[in-house]
Amino acid sequence: MTIFDEFESAVQSYARSFPCIFNRAKNELLYDEAGNEYLDFLAGAGTLNYGHNNDLFKARLVEYIMADGITHGLDLHTKAKGEFLEAFNERILKPRNLDYVMQFTGPTGTNAVEAALKLARNVTGRENVISFTNGFHGVSLGALATTGNSHHRGAAGVSLGGSSRMPYDGYLGDGVDTTAYLDKVLGDSSSGIDLPAAVIVETVQGEGGINAASAEWLQQLESVCRKYDVLLIVDDVQAGCGRTGTFFSFEESGIKPDIVTMSKSLGGYGLPFAMVMIRPDLDQWKPGEHNGTFRGNNFAFVTAKAALDEYWADDRFAKDIQRKGEYVEKRLAQMAAAYGDGNFSTRGRGMFRGLNCVDGDLASKITRKAFANGLMIETSGADDQVVKILCPLIITDANLKKGLDILAAAIRDICAKESEMPEESDYFDNVQLVEPELTALAS
Amino acid sequence: MTIFDEFESAVQSYARSFPCIFNRAKNELLYDEAGNEYLDFLAGAGTLNYGHNNDLFKARLVEYIMADGITHGLDLHTKAKGEFLEAFNERILKPRNLDYVMQFTGPTGTNAVEAALKLARNVTGRENVISFTNGFHGVSLGALATTGNSHHRGAAGVSLGGSSRMPYDGYLGDGVDTTAYLDKVLGDSSSGIDLPAAVIVETVQGEGGINAASAEWLQQLESVCRKYDVLLIVDDVQAGCGRTGTFFSFEESGIKPDIVTMSKSLGGYGLPFAMVMIRPDLDQWKPGEHNGTFRGNNFAFVTAKAALDEYWADDRFAKDIQRKGEYVEKRLAQMAAAYGDGNFSTRGRGMFRGLNCVDGDLASKITRKAFANGLMIETSGADDQVVKILCPLIITDANLKKGLDILAAAIRDICAKESEMPEESDYFDNVQLVEPELTALAS
Amino acid sequence: MTIFDEFESAVQSYARSFPCIFNRAKNELLYDEAGNEYLDFLAGAGTLNYGHNNDLFKARLVEYIMADGITHGLDLHTKAKGEFLEAFNERILKPRNLDYVMQFTGPTGTNAVEAALKLARNVTGRENVISFTNGFHGVSLGALATTGNSHHRGAAGVSLGGSSRMPYDGYLGDGVDTTAYLDKVLGDSSSGIDLPAAVIVETVQGEGGINAASAEWLQQLESVCRKYDVLLIVDDVQAGCGRTGTFFSFEESGIKPDIVTMSKSLGGYGLPFAMVMIRPDLDQWKPGEHNGTFRGNNFAFVTAKAALDEYWADDRFAKDIQRKGEYVEKRLAQMAAAYGDGNFSTRGRGMFRGLNCVDGDLASKITRKAFANGLMIETSGADDQVVKILCPLIITDANLKKGLDILAAAIRDICAKESEMPEESDYFDNVQLVEPELTALAS
Amino acid sequence: MTIFDEFESAVQSYARSFPCIFNRAKNELLYDEAGNEYLDFLAGAGTLNYGHNNDLFKARLVEYIMADGITHGLDLHTKAKGEFLEAFNERILKPRNLDYVMQFTGPTGTNAVEAALKLARNVTGRENVISFTNGFHGVSLGALATTGNSHHRGAAGVSLGGSSRMPYDGYLGDGVDTTAYLDKVLGDSSSGIDLPAAVIVETVQGEGGINAASAEWLQQLESVCRKYDVLLIVDDVQAGCGRTGTFFSFEESGIKPDIVTMSKSLGGYGLPFAMVMIRPDLDQWKPGEHNGTFRGNNFAFVTAKAALDEYWADDRFAKDIQRKGEYVEKRLAQMAAAYGDGNFSTRGRGMFRGLNCVDGDLASKITRKAFANGLMIETSGADDQVVKILCPLIITDANLKKGLDILAAAIRDICAKESEMPEESDYFDNVQLVEPELTALAS
Repeated sequence: MTIFDEFESAVQSYARSFPCIFNRAKNELLYDEAGNEYLDFLAGAGTLNYGHNNDLFKARLVEYIMADGITHGLDLHTKAKGEFLEAFNERILKPRNLDYVMQFTGPTGTNAVEAALKLARNVTGRENVISFTNGFHGVSLGALATTGNSHHRGAAGVSLGGSSRMPYDGYLGDGVDTTAYLDKVLGDSSSGIDLPAAVIVETVQGEGGINAASAEWLQQLESVCRKYDVLLIVDDVQAGCGRTGTFFSFEESGIKPDIVTMSKSLGGYGLPFAMVMIRPDLDQWKPGEHNGTFRGNNFAFVTAKAALDEYWADDRFAKDIQRKGEYVEKRLAQMAAAYGDGNFSTRGRGMFRGLNCVDGDLASKITRKAFANGLMIETSGADDQVVKILCPLIITDANLKKGLDILAAAIRDICAKESEMPEESDYFDNVQLVEPELTALAS
Repeated sequence: MTIFDEFESAVQSYARSFPCIFNRAKNELLYDEAGNEYLDFLAGAGTLNYGHNNDLFKARLVEYIMADGITHGLDLHTKAKGEFLEAFNERILKPRNLDYVMQFTGPTGTNAVEAALKLARNVTGRENVISFTNGFHGVSLGALATTGNSHHRGAAGVSLGGSSRMPYDGYLGDGVDTTAYLDKVLGDSSSGIDLPAAVIVETVQGEGGINAASAEWLQQLESVCRKYDVLLIVDDVQAGCGRTGTFFSFEESGIKPDIVTMSKSLGGYGLPFAMVMIRPDLDQWKPGEHNGTFRGNNFAFVTAKAALDEYWADDRFAKDIQRKGEYVEKRLAQMAAAYGDGNFSTRGRGMFRGLNCVDGDLASKITRKAFANGLMIETSGADDQVVKILCPLIITDANLKKGLDILAAAIRDICAKESEMPEESDYFDNVQLVEPELTALAS
Repeated sequence: MTIFDEFESAVQSYARSFPCIFNRAKNELLYDEAGNEYLDFLAGAGTLNYGHNNDLFKARLVEYIMADGITHGLDLHTKAKGEFLEAFNERILKPRNLDYVMQFTGPTGTNAVEAALKLARNVTGRENVISFTNGFHGVSLGALATTGNSHHRGAAGVSLGGSSRMPYDGYLGDGVDTTAYLDKVLGDSSSGIDLPAAVIVETVQGEGGINAASAEWLQQLESVCRKYDVLLIVDDVQAGCGRTGTFFSFEESGIKPDIVTMSKSLGGYGLPFAMVMIRPDLDQWKPGEHNGTFRGNNFAFVTAKAALDEYWADDRFAKDIQRKGEYVEKRLAQMAAAYGDGNFSTRGRGMFRGLNCVDGDLASKITRKAFANGLMIETSGADDQVVKILCPLIITDANLKKGLDILAAAIRDICAKESEMPEESDYFDNVQLVEPELTALAS
Repeated sequence: MTIFDEFESAVQSYARSFPCIFNRAKNELLYDEAGNEYLDFLAGAGTLNYGHNNDLFKARLVEYIMADGITHGLDLHTKAKGEFLEAFNERILKPRNLDYVMQFTGPTGTNAVEAALKLARNVTGRENVISFTNGFHGVSLGALATTGNSHHRGAAGVSLGGSSRMPYDGYLGDGVDTTAYLDKVLGDSSSGIDLPAAVIVETVQGEGGINAASAEWLQQLESVCRKYDVLLIVDDVQAGCGRTGTFFSFEESGIKPDIVTMSKSLGGYGLPFAMVMIRPDLDQWKPGEHNGTFRGNNFAFVTAKAALDEYWADDRFAKDIQRKGEYVEKRLAQMAAAYGDGNFSTRGRGMFRGLNCVDGDLASKITRKAFANGLMIETSGADDQVVKILCPLIITDANLKKGLDILAAAIRDICAKESEMPEESDYFDNVQLVEPELTALAS
């Protein structure tokens, strides 16, 4: 019996899928105590866009620590915080013509969502918040009310009120624009959907199964919000920080959310960090109304600024993500096509991609097989039926190809076994031959 | 206009009381950009029991970072986590004959409280949770329902359900045992207080005004919980980790809570970290039911273990806290007595002490005066009327004396001004002459 | 200033539309103190299906009173209750092959709905209840959560939880089967719509604007309920007791609800009365769990039984309703067509009919005009835009024609004024010439 | 199997204690189908203060029916309503110098409470309502949140929010003024008891066990409400209409509630009826915000006016209630003393009296024994441990004595059996000899 069996709660989850003891990591690679190497296509569920222990940030972090920079300062002004704010404005807001003030909440996404919902309710004086089918916004009680997953909702132990659910883009089939439904209920004084303070939405639903909303749908959603004077909150905790190919996931659509929640990769180095971006006129917080001990993690200010400096000073990183994203898309399309009897479909945007399987059982077999071959990869979706490709954005071309090769092989093996069609593996080998080229990044 | 005025949300609070830009800290001292030194009697609201950037931990942290130890690993098993669990068992649980399993939640106290409440509700199948007047347990929605402060509650924007409020120890006056009232309502099928899943209690209410429950009251509370098969949750986020003179604040009373929430100083170095301790048979979580991206901060595992190794291997640290605590108590009693017309009273336990002022206005004047003289000290309580003495436990004797001297002088000045009784300062000087000796720690 | 101005609350509503003091009524006619006669196309919002002070019931009621039959008996067994139960079984349940037990709640529809929802929640152990856009189920807090109208919801003063809203038949346009959407969210473990205890539905939404669900939709709804083991509650408070042409409004569709709520015309004479019909195996109430002082109004037992005896012993009454309903339908269609530029559309089923106007303003002008000509008629719908034709079912052919003539004339006058098209009235007069014949009831 | 076994829901309660089929009643007497006579000390749980089928009202009711007076008129102005309002003002409000407007809700107490709570919340913009231990205000969801009984609360199936519970007069023992506790929590911004819209209180808790608040306590409660600008709602549904010796139960204390809920005996004849009395400036309802089909039962207007005319034109009825109440008090005190080993204690005010037994089992044996001897009498209280003496106020002296004799004999028999002390019955016979005289009413 390990120390974990003995003393860690049964609530652990990832540790069950990847039952090793890890002790070292670098970029897209993890190592266990025995020295085995694993290719990480999980990336801290979107926290490690810049990889593990990125050397560009590590130096700055250690320098800060050695100089006895402020580690914990509640919400006091610190030099590190000031420098982050400056960099965020210069590198991110200004070039995108965006205007926000920043709130640093307790350093997790769910804390940021709690703050965003509170603020929206206080500013508007309304209680209801529109959330979407398959959305995930965290598991503290306020955020959980907007989260769709019944596994998490069922654990609340109390009623989850204050949110009305609407169908996400595509939920009612291709023919139905679900924002028109939202428009209708908000305009109908007898619809039973109370006029909401806000709509909270992910542009790509990560936990919900890598469902990517179209730019048109997001634009329509923004229009409906404007029409009824409802705030638009984009939860960019998982999709933000470059994952979809731009810093914010909503840039492509051109919408301007009233509030944006950020966390995960924002800190750069994998350190706890969360931030709420607020349209300045909505920043009606009274001092200390929403507080917390660890709001504004100074270590993360240092590494977050480093990330902005190193990766977002120009558009080269964004272009590289798009290049790799297209490669992933093609490879996944190939895999889906190779088993063209409808077993698989692809979804997602940028380097936020998924391979949808017929059921969670198949997806689970595939990811277990992949792990046996050194690839850490997980599933998401209502039934854990979507294999989630979420590798660090800074992954080398070689390792990106390698990871997808392992995945493809796992699918081939599992499907061969499932269907007892040995000749299929030959077919798949052929497919491999014409695999899409991963163009080198123009220097 | 500073960068903070321009880009940080109006929600900031401590930054208003101490409007400097800090850039360096060591032990009980903070430094601003201009090089000014401040004595820290705030200690990250209880997060810095071991001081800022404690050198004993810093070395281990930098070593870990340099070796590319896992920084972010979701809830994967890591070497750092395993070593923390072992140290926590060896140094803390075993010697105290305690038996718990540990859940690492999102790294803030409120996330731990959310998990504790969920678990209690799920295990018992009941919704109600008893919380106490003046209690503080965090501001995410689930925790906020158990928090008493109307400033924070009012910001929720939705109804806060699921908790019934009971009077804390002493709330109904000295003659009334408030656990008897609790006993009565739980035994009365028509009381309107639904049989609760749990009682959540702080042994010393930090934010509520440094109200310390007596050992007898805690024992009675435990008895009532046992009588009705209600779980007892001790929220030791602020009072734990040595603050009251023992590692857990409830040790003195001998009670054995079913669930304990820990955060703040648990990580040692001021890094975000939180943990729920669960009686093993209550650990009925299903995998991943309560999750989060930053649960189990590996940096904090490293520094938390260092803290256990360095300070809790024997009882010397505990004794030193008690020694200093007694000194603080005597000094505060003296200050209260010197202005014996009822303006002040003292409260608290160990190094968790407060000086209660007639109103928040007086307390605010005192703390502002103290800050002008280089002492960072804050207030708490319903009306911010309690000056909160919460310095690092590792403070030097000289600085402890110095801080209290600054506080005493501030009180003297303010009260002289208030009452226009110049002779009082003479009296106070006399008092100073017979000030209690701060016995050196026996080596 | 009248006694009503002086002493009755501002909450009064119908009294504002029809500002007379009424003192006598018979069948479809009301009289005010000055002796003016009004034709009643409002019928107590569906309570007076058998007309005012129906002589067939009046005799039995007075006889009961004169004999000192039990007036108030809490839920004691009384001869009157026993006789009602027998008659209800013989005249209604048996012939329709239905099997229910009856609960007599506080004598209003909302009390019955409260009981139905409680029972559904207790039997299933689930909290959520699916309700529909534009649904109306009462205004006590439990029922109000399922009611769609924002005017009523806004008056709650607290959050209305425990219900998820779904689009009613036709709400998403003709092409979309909204039960398919319900099916999808219930089958999707991440939809965010918690598995409900029950679905509560009106087959025709009275207050919501006389929206009639199709038989197919109701059948589909029943199928979805069966598929997920969700209870189906039909709220037949307004649509029941013959209004749609059959005793229960759901007979035509062939569905068998698990729970049915009845009130309004059930008592026959306009006396307060309400009943919940429960599938026998679901009758898991513990004694007195849901109680109330006036449950089981004995006067209403007497008149309710009289109504069953007089009108439901054979199918003649049902056929007469259908005959009259068809006449109303044709007349309304004619009115809508006469102003064929899309100002009007018709809706409803049986003698539960509505004329939909472009807006509430137009509808209000029409009903006010009609009242000026002796016709009491009201509006419903989200914007009060539907003129609601809801006369007593026992109305004479002459008065039915007369009422519709007054309505038609009101529309003509108002539309003429609105459009300043004097020639239209000629057109309308022509239309009148070919008005549908109201075939006399075959004896 | 009777028709009731076959077709009436298991929710029935009184019918279980008194399993007869009743078919006739007059004043304080009920008769079953077999012609057996029962003396009614239950009086419709307070609905039959004027007895069953009071001949003084019956004539007027039948006259109204025969003249085809309006039976059902929604909230239309009717002659009957106008006459009631006038009588209520002349006979009740004016002589007591009270100023209210009246809202007629759905005709049950719980509907009136729902309206009162809504109005208080809307007027103040606050959600919380203070309710008391052992309070009972009805079982629809809004009212149920303020009701203490766990049997009823447990049936809700959803969370009951929006109310904070406070200890009723005497709940914390004789030494503790529970309004001081309320004062403290309302004045403490960190108490966790949100500033309420209103306090809702019964002056005598009927269902809670006939707990009578002292006049001083009610005055203190009113003072606390005024201090914090909190509305005071007296729920006089059971205690009102003369039960305590004055028309309103709060007259003795001199308090002036902001809102009063009335039902039960208000209608006089046992007909469904309910009313909310509102301080005129608080009547901020918008038209129809709180509605219902059966609000304003016209039959009850007629009989309610008759009751006011016949019994409240002068103070003779009030004096007679007081005279009888004193007699009941003395008889109960005697019974309690006769079994002076603490088995019994008395409680209550006017003709609202209870005999508290050691447990519900004993109380149940007594009431069953009494019923066997022709006395219908019930229990109340958290454990049904209080025998509730609640006979019609118009009971004859002879029948009042007879009922108490039956009760005394039942106690004697049960206690003799319990304690096997045959000599006790002798003692009791002696006690009987000196029984208090029931002075005839001075004409």
